[in-house]
Amino acid sequence: MREGSNIRKAEGSFHWEGVEPLSYKEEGSAPFKAITRQVLFDRPELGCELRYFEMQPGGHSTLERHEHVHAVMIFRGGGTCLVGAEVRGVAAPDLVFIPPLTWHQFRASADEPFGFLCMVNTERDKPQLPSEDELRRLRQDPAIGAFLDG
Amino acid sequence: MREGSNIRKAEGSFHWEGVEPLSYKEEGSAPFKAITRQVLFDRPELGCELRYFEMQPGGHSTLERHEHVHAVMIFRGGGTCLVGAEVRGVAAPDLVFIPPLTWHQFRASADEPFGFLCMVNTERDKPQLPSEDELRRLRQDPAIGAFLDG
Repeated sequence: MREGSNIRKAEGSFHWEGVEPLSYKEEGSAPFKAITRQVLFDRPELGCELRYFEMQPGGHSTLERHEHVHAVMIFRGGGTCLVGAEVRGVAAPDLVFIPPLTWHQFRASADEPFGFLCMVNTERDKPQLPSEDELRRLRQDPAIGAFLDG
Repeated sequence: MREGSNIRKAEGSFHWEGVEPLSYKEEGSAPFKAITRQVLFDRPELGCELRYFEMQPGGHSTLERHEHVHAVMIFRGGGTCLVGAEVRGVAAPDLVFIPPLTWHQFRASADEPFGFLCMVNTERDKPQLPSEDELRRLRQDPAIGAFLDG
């Protein structure tokens, strides 16, 4: 990256100068599989961050909910997402809004990487994981059960 | 768009269900050329919006500056941008940060459309246009002069 520049060139399609691929979350803190995180913008002036998450084929994000919301654009490949009661196939560049306290998860297909951009507030509450009871309740919907079983 | 859905499918690559292409700005309010605006997310919970701007070949945004910042990802094709003293070719998916009170403009190349995503605060100050004196000062840098002449 040129010194003092405000431009970060892409290095290949899904990496950028000066942007480091990070762990998705602390290992063992929650269930997830084969997913990385890159923080593209986290300027304090905005109060929001833009992150890029990428799953390998068969990977998935954590099934969770929280008070804060996510504004998501699918950016690479395709997969399936759960948002509340809705299970749906998505592909670049579909848009997904995750409302407050809504169970959600993203799952890559078996044959290609699946990446998405996510805009989120810098200050946000900690994600909640489903209890066993909550998981049973979610699985009462067969489409959600099939989704969760990958 | 399915009723109650949180998912907006892409219709073609650069349009989305329920997202209307809008005027870039009010006609005559500032110089610009062949550019449209789509608001992808403007949820009040985020305090930020995500917009998609697209220029036709040869089009350009307004040369302006303001206190608020922009976090930009080039999303379609390529072109040239001015950010402060820097003139540089950019292409999808390069990242561009526009700092406060920094002159900036995006210009499409002559042969393809040029689109970018822009994250911005919902509450923001009004853009300032350059005075004749300011334009003269900017043009003292030959690279900026050539950029402004397209």
